[in-house]
Amino acid sequence: MSKLLRQPVTLALIQLASTASKPHNLTHARSLVLRAAQRGARIIVLPECFNSPYGTKYFPTYAETLRPTPPSETDSPSYHALSNMAKEANSYLVGGSIPEYDTETKKYYNTSLTFGPAGQLLATHRKVHLFDIDIPGGFKFKESEVLSPGNNVTVVDLPEYGKLGIAICYDVRFPELATIAARKGAFALVYPGAFNMTTGPMHWELLARARATDNQVYVGLCSPARDVGADYHAWGHTVLVDPNAEVMESLGAEEGILFGELRGERIEEVRKGIPLYTQRRFDVYPDVSEGKIRFED
Amino acid sequence: MSKLLRQPVTLALIQLASTASKPHNLTHARSLVLRAAQRGARIIVLPECFNSPYGTKYFPTYAETLRPTPPSETDSPSYHALSNMAKEANSYLVGGSIPEYDTETKKYYNTSLTFGPAGQLLATHRKVHLFDIDIPGGFKFKESEVLSPGNNVTVVDLPEYGKLGIAICYDVRFPELATIAARKGAFALVYPGAFNMTTGPMHWELLARARATDNQVYVGLCSPARDVGADYHAWGHTVLVDPNAEVMESLGAEEGILFGELRGERIEEVRKGIPLYTQRRFDVYPDVSEGKIRFED
Repeated sequence: MSKLLRQPVTLALIQLASTASKPHNLTHARSLVLRAAQRGARIIVLPECFNSPYGTKYFPTYAETLRPTPPSETDSPSYHALSNMAKEANSYLVGGSIPEYDTETKKYYNTSLTFGPAGQLLATHRKVHLFDIDIPGGFKFKESEVLSPGNNVTVVDLPEYGKLGIAICYDVRFPELATIAARKGAFALVYPGAFNMTTGPMHWELLARARATDNQVYVGLCSPARDVGADYHAWGHTVLVDPNAEVMESLGAEEGILFGELRGERIEEVRKGIPLYTQRRFDVYPDVSEGKIRFED
Repeated sequence: MSKLLRQPVTLALIQLASTASKPHNLTHARSLVLRAAQRGARIIVLPECFNSPYGTKYFPTYAETLRPTPPSETDSPSYHALSNMAKEANSYLVGGSIPEYDTETKKYYNTSLTFGPAGQLLATHRKVHLFDIDIPGGFKFKESEVLSPGNNVTVVDLPEYGKLGIAICYDVRFPELATIAARKGAFALVYPGAFNMTTGPMHWELLARARATDNQVYVGLCSPARDVGADYHAWGHTVLVDPNAEVMESLGAEEGILFGELRGERIEEVRKGIPLYTQRRFDVYPDVSEGKIRFED
């Protein structure tokens, strides 16, 4: 039995085609989650903002309060839909991300909810690094016009399998999150993410492979399908990379499901061949995973 | 004027074909260094173990004591040859690396010496992470059979240009060295390195691009030419990557010189477009460059 990944598991990354209709997006996501489960996936990932168009002007309209008092399906339809999908699929579900409104802080967040096979909420990751970029002649976007950042590194323990690192899109550019999750024992890192037609060709696959080779873990980036009728043209190209940074599979721009089998033995084989985990020189430089880190409660 | 790189500079990475003859290697290196300078390079880099075959059995034979007392050209011919080359070329010279024997510690090291245009020694980097790998069905090597590791992060200030991060080959797999150098203000990272026919195709260019995209600096990896008659078949493929992780130029397996113009404005343009340097969340995780680090004295 592998220490990091207790048994082999099929991961599915769903490159969902979303629309402007939240009810449709939730119904459609459910059908693909169930299809993935029927084909053997036990860890299923949806893309960033799968229930909403991507754009700061949409976030307030589509945002939900996750823990309404009293609890109400009406106030948080995506939360409940994801919980039900995980239960129906009898799988772990990294529910991409959704725009969230917190009535306590009175702020909006880009938030990923992970549920277990009993429908129970296992982890909440609020995007830590907001997507504020302005590439001359390229692409401009400013999530912070509307969103506030999360403040936590997210590593969730899936009891049957092991630890999974979760972050969202632009978070992948900040290696600390990946490094910390991997050094805390994660077997895989998943990033629901929506790169675009500028940043996608430049860095999407590179970042997946970089995080994999530096940390010797599986890395999955899960994009929405491209919708050229939408304001934001997602890059697509959902990709799964193995612990040796080899691309196991990748999709194009269209809707689809990427399946991959994750094996603990592969992680150990790679780490035995190139034993970075025993060779780091924390006498020369600090170990970022041993410093003061804010994890989710 | 750029804050990081004070003026544009031509970098040359020399993919040298070495032999078993140290005197020949030194003479040959000199001719290519002078050629690079004649073509405008002011920062010139030689590959790892440029004066010796690569292999643990060769290191003791080829090793030199760098600071013999009394000083003697006979005891450290490579040291003096590199100093003279830098002076003749009127350039900064990152002298690849050479096997070093330290009479005080009585240990061998894989050591990179950087000289200034007056022939003065500016920096000494002893490879911090020794190349001990054993890939099943692939490649096995154990530098630590003979070599001892260095204990310092190396960032050298080139007065006319700015700061340069220097490390050797396998060091590139440990992102901390690059991160620290970049956050301390380096405009470029150079790695004399000799990947092989297993690790080269897997990770050589990926690692160059990964260090560049995470740190938004120029990255140069400088390999020996491939010699299929030698014990160790270097991958070659010397490569220069820009701060946006785009490959500016790369070589094949044969001897050659790669030239590239480094511009501070390009670094600033990339960092303005994707402003990682203002977005890192050191309230959530530590800054590895602010911890306890061992720099060269």
